[in-house]
Amino acid sequence: MKRGARGLVSLGILLAGLSAGYVYGQANDQAWRDQGIVNLNKSPYAKLHSVPVHAVTIGDGFWGQRRKTAVEKSIPSIWQLIEAHGYVDNFRRLSKGKNVPRKGPVFTDTDPYKWIEAVAMFLQSGDRPELRMIAEQTIDEIVAVQEPSGYLDTYFQGDRVKDRLLPATLDYGHEDYSLGHMLQSAIAYYRATGDRKFLDAATRFADYIARDFGPDKKPFLAGHPVIEMGLVELYRTTGDQRYLDLAGYILNGDPRIERPPYRVMYTFSGIPFTERTHMQGHAVRAMYACSGATDYYLETGDPKYWRTLENLWQDTVNTKMYITGGLGARWEGEAFGDAYELPNARSYAETCAAIGGVMWNWRMLAATGDARFTDVLERMLYNAVNAGMSLDGKLYCYVNPLETSGKVDPDRHGSGGTIRNPWYDVLCCPPNIERTLGALPGYMYSTSPDGLYVHLYDNSRLDWHLQDGTGLKVEQKTGYPWDGNVEITVSPATEKEFTLYVRIPGWTKGTKVRTTTQASLEGGKPGSYLAIRRSWKPGDKVQLEFDMTARLIASNPKVQENARKVALQRGPLIYCLEQPDQPENVSVADMAISPDQKGRFRTEHRADLLGGITVVHYQGLAYEPASAQEPLYGAVQPETKRSGREVELTFIPYYAWANRQASAMRVWIPYAQGE
Amino acid sequence: MKRGARGLVSLGILLAGLSAGYVYGQANDQAWRDQGIVNLNKSPYAKLHSVPVHAVTIGDGFWGQRRKTAVEKSIPSIWQLIEAHGYVDNFRRLSKGKNVPRKGPVFTDTDPYKWIEAVAMFLQSGDRPELRMIAEQTIDEIVAVQEPSGYLDTYFQGDRVKDRLLPATLDYGHEDYSLGHMLQSAIAYYRATGDRKFLDAATRFADYIARDFGPDKKPFLAGHPVIEMGLVELYRTTGDQRYLDLAGYILNGDPRIERPPYRVMYTFSGIPFTERTHMQGHAVRAMYACSGATDYYLETGDPKYWRTLENLWQDTVNTKMYITGGLGARWEGEAFGDAYELPNARSYAETCAAIGGVMWNWRMLAATGDARFTDVLERMLYNAVNAGMSLDGKLYCYVNPLETSGKVDPDRHGSGGTIRNPWYDVLCCPPNIERTLGALPGYMYSTSPDGLYVHLYDNSRLDWHLQDGTGLKVEQKTGYPWDGNVEITVSPATEKEFTLYVRIPGWTKGTKVRTTTQASLEGGKPGSYLAIRRSWKPGDKVQLEFDMTARLIASNPKVQENARKVALQRGPLIYCLEQPDQPENVSVADMAISPDQKGRFRTEHRADLLGGITVVHYQGLAYEPASAQEPLYGAVQPETKRSGREVELTFIPYYAWANRQASAMRVWIPYAQGE
Repeated sequence: MKRGARGLVSLGILLAGLSAGYVYGQANDQAWRDQGIVNLNKSPYAKLHSVPVHAVTIGDGFWGQRRKTAVEKSIPSIWQLIEAHGYVDNFRRLSKGKNVPRKGPVFTDTDPYKWIEAVAMFLQSGDRPELRMIAEQTIDEIVAVQEPSGYLDTYFQGDRVKDRLLPATLDYGHEDYSLGHMLQSAIAYYRATGDRKFLDAATRFADYIARDFGPDKKPFLAGHPVIEMGLVELYRTTGDQRYLDLAGYILNGDPRIERPPYRVMYTFSGIPFTERTHMQGHAVRAMYACSGATDYYLETGDPKYWRTLENLWQDTVNTKMYITGGLGARWEGEAFGDAYELPNARSYAETCAAIGGVMWNWRMLAATGDARFTDVLERMLYNAVNAGMSLDGKLYCYVNPLETSGKVDPDRHGSGGTIRNPWYDVLCCPPNIERTLGALPGYMYSTSPDGLYVHLYDNSRLDWHLQDGTGLKVEQKTGYPWDGNVEITVSPATEKEFTLYVRIPGWTKGTKVRTTTQASLEGGKPGSYLAIRRSWKPGDKVQLEFDMTARLIASNPKVQENARKVALQRGPLIYCLEQPDQPENVSVADMAISPDQKGRFRTEHRADLLGGITVVHYQGLAYEPASAQEPLYGAVQPETKRSGREVELTFIPYYAWANRQASAMRVWIPYAQGE
Repeated sequence: MKRGARGLVSLGILLAGLSAGYVYGQANDQAWRDQGIVNLNKSPYAKLHSVPVHAVTIGDGFWGQRRKTAVEKSIPSIWQLIEAHGYVDNFRRLSKGKNVPRKGPVFTDTDPYKWIEAVAMFLQSGDRPELRMIAEQTIDEIVAVQEPSGYLDTYFQGDRVKDRLLPATLDYGHEDYSLGHMLQSAIAYYRATGDRKFLDAATRFADYIARDFGPDKKPFLAGHPVIEMGLVELYRTTGDQRYLDLAGYILNGDPRIERPPYRVMYTFSGIPFTERTHMQGHAVRAMYACSGATDYYLETGDPKYWRTLENLWQDTVNTKMYITGGLGARWEGEAFGDAYELPNARSYAETCAAIGGVMWNWRMLAATGDARFTDVLERMLYNAVNAGMSLDGKLYCYVNPLETSGKVDPDRHGSGGTIRNPWYDVLCCPPNIERTLGALPGYMYSTSPDGLYVHLYDNSRLDWHLQDGTGLKVEQKTGYPWDGNVEITVSPATEKEFTLYVRIPGWTKGTKVRTTTQASLEGGKPGSYLAIRRSWKPGDKVQLEFDMTARLIASNPKVQENARKVALQRGPLIYCLEQPDQPENVSVADMAISPDQKGRFRTEHRADLLGGITVVHYQGLAYEPASAQEPLYGAVQPETKRSGREVELTFIPYYAWANRQASAMRVWIPYAQGE
């Protein structure tokens, strides 16, 4: 009863806050509301500051539709499954003595944590009483399990107390991972509601670790990085230096814990982060470690960290990233492969790894204001991440291949032979997508001392302020990414000189930019922010016109599977051929694309297809005879080229694949030139 | 003392046998000597009968050199390491109470077994007293451990008695695998020496299984197939039907043992063999299961078996075999991939899988006399198997990639970052290569009711007889595979009409065949046996002239990594580019091959290089700029072709790679046509 009452009280506070109608988002003593997805307001090495999620309202459009699906379909349905699989009972059996066995893998506590974080992100955009109530009840279930010491991990309470927090347990047991997600979730929930209960519990657990573990105390290890991000964010939230120091200690590795080289490589932890020279091991761990290390850099400015981060980033984007932004070439170890090892059908490209990539690039962007990070972030968001949730919001990809014959190994993660599934016992991906879509408004803008950065384009309204406190509203009207026109209306509270940094994506060519006062602006270099410095009056407009002509992309010849193949990109979207869209009796496996010639692309917006997409038609060949009828190996006949009949290829955006019957799909298509 | 004395006695018998100078290999009551690598003399569904190993003497030449290395370097050096790693002590600690811990994985007993088998195969070609003495002593060490029941497995004696032969143990514990190898080794040793001690011990273990396990007894399972081959060969050796029935029961799977689908797939066991529809799972297990199933077919003629075997073979050679004959695309599970999934740098292609492929194709050949099986056997033998042992005989490949940058994952099987290693804790491959090279003479010929089949070409002498008992000597003189001329001298004891089946390999074109009496013979169709029926007089000759012009081979476009690439084949040998042979400052990764034009190949025999090889020079391109300097993804410039400067490419046989410093290598080379 008491709990329910408190819940109603804090709900009241929240609703009051939401309905207060902040004028330009300031003059607000509720500091918890304005901290962004990462709170960089006091980070000395952050060039950019975050804009809180609540300050950006995404309207009808590309992401509005996906976010609606996430909050109305995905979040409720995955909750039912989390409950049905006993992952909340894992708490109840300890606090309420519910007589059920513990269920699922060692790290199941993080699934409710991430789910609450997803809810918290959406609550920052507006109330969802039914979700908030579940979140609040679940927080109570969680906190009820916490021991007086602060310890909280359902796997190591009860039967396995003696194993907890030992070096070997930290290597494999995911206690560090649970605490990391608990911190991220609790901070997000606090930023959504001002309610400290979950935050206080997570802080108590962090305090316990900070008190007993460290250089002159017991050794600690991040067996699955994420705690580094959590601790730095706790430092940003509380100002308590101990958490930053603990993050630094963990990033540095404790030499007292000896582990086989394979684990050090696989976990991306245990040796000084600054000794890493290339991307390797478990892709999600690597991305979370790099994100945490960037957080640490943003607070400390340690140049060794920056050099390492820059090297690792170059290694990733130049040799180990799929064109979709997917990360992790290997099924073995869910891991990065060697340089240029990017198989298509056997890609792993775990959804969570791309989400980790978004987190990392967001932090690298904050440190520099450099558009190359936003380019990668956008690539990942629209393609590798977005593909992870079905159009109806109820099925998820764990792995994201760039090619399939339509048949999926039945031994894939709990897949039962399908690529999209409602549930995985290792549930990391679904709530991870939900929290990313929930946080999305927070990725659209940043502030700098001299103005505002516009990172992403979608129908939306910003209601925030410049760093000097001047209120600022910005409205975007656009059909992006289906069309390339974006109208940005800039309305400072009063006329004000500042710089508007408008992102010109790296994939663009010849972007036209004009403002209310200038018919044509120079300098819109692809892969940069165009700095428009002027005195802005309320209602001033910037018009962007991106050339959305589809383009064929080749890869480095060292990517063996893509040799002499091309992919199709239109705007930020990578496209693919999926069997249902192709002419009858032509297998996707036998289709080739004709050389790029002006006017051969034909785009068509199909509101009726796959939630509304722009398809691209293109001239190509259907090879004859079909390759299935050819021998595995045969002598080259130099005078003979593969022949075929002309067919029209129809491409759909990669993110929309596998939403119909299981069928063949491929991103990289043979380029018929020269055959 | 007693043992030593007996050893000397049986050694004496052996030497007497060897020196008796059989006239045409018959009139011999020592039946054990004449049973071949598999004894098909009474197998009702064998079209061909084996010729014993001792009947063929391989002289100086390609295989003579490799066999000399195997018996003089590899076998002695690997024995020292088997001892040093305690794999024989695993027996001594039980029989002699030697106070050492058990060493190595669960299946280490099979390493001495396979080593003894390798020795036994070489003993069939002539005495090696020092090796025979070690083998004999080791057999005593082994037999001393056997329990009165017949049970013998060092892992499950002593501490783990309670676990033995339980369904879960059979799934993972390799007791079945140990018995299978024990049977193969003991039979080979018996066929080499007539000594029954090891054979009797293996038979006692088999009797124990046959007595207690079966349809109406306790359930049995082959967690790692090989026991099927062992039991059928024991049936052939003893005539006892129980062993054949037990093999059939195991091949059929016992439905009482329930296992997850993944294990059934992975182990290639546990469901009726005849329900298999495609090649899948652990490649070595699959090959051994198929070999055992073919053995079973050769005895029973069950048409369901044949249909399954034919389907599986077609699936393998049409969609899942590397051009080297390597098998197993995936590191995960050391397994077959999907159809056409044949990555080059990430190929697994375990040496043992190709050896299993040789065993299987040998049995399929025996059932049919069909040269397509010999073609695959030859491909595997010269390339995938032969690459597995270094030129000095002291280093081994466990995995056999078709491409490398020269850097090897340090997390590869005990590799320490090198592709060839003297030792692997999982030691299967080295003694497996040794026993294959030891058995090689037995693969060169078969008899049929109407004559003799010549399968393989090398300098050698056959001293055997036709199935009707007519003595027959055959001598081959050739420089094969370096040159294509083979002179076969056929000498029956008296003039005799029979058919000489001369193999025309599938890779040939326009082979010239002539005999003493015929200047030119028609019908030498590639991939067939040319049947030469005539009355043969002692000293009659057949001259073969294979066209050894190097050829460029393409693969099915569905093999993604090989699209628009070619490989070079000359005779039975697949070639590769290795960095040390190329011009300075040109990376193998940037080399392309120019279109096939007459006369552009230039061959050169280099007696000084890599043990003596024929290298092939060819005109090609070195791309500029080097691919390492190009972006990972970039817009296609349709008018631009990749340009490069002309360079000479130098190819070496694939089997000889990685015998110098670690360096880049690739089999599949971009084909510059059309660029």
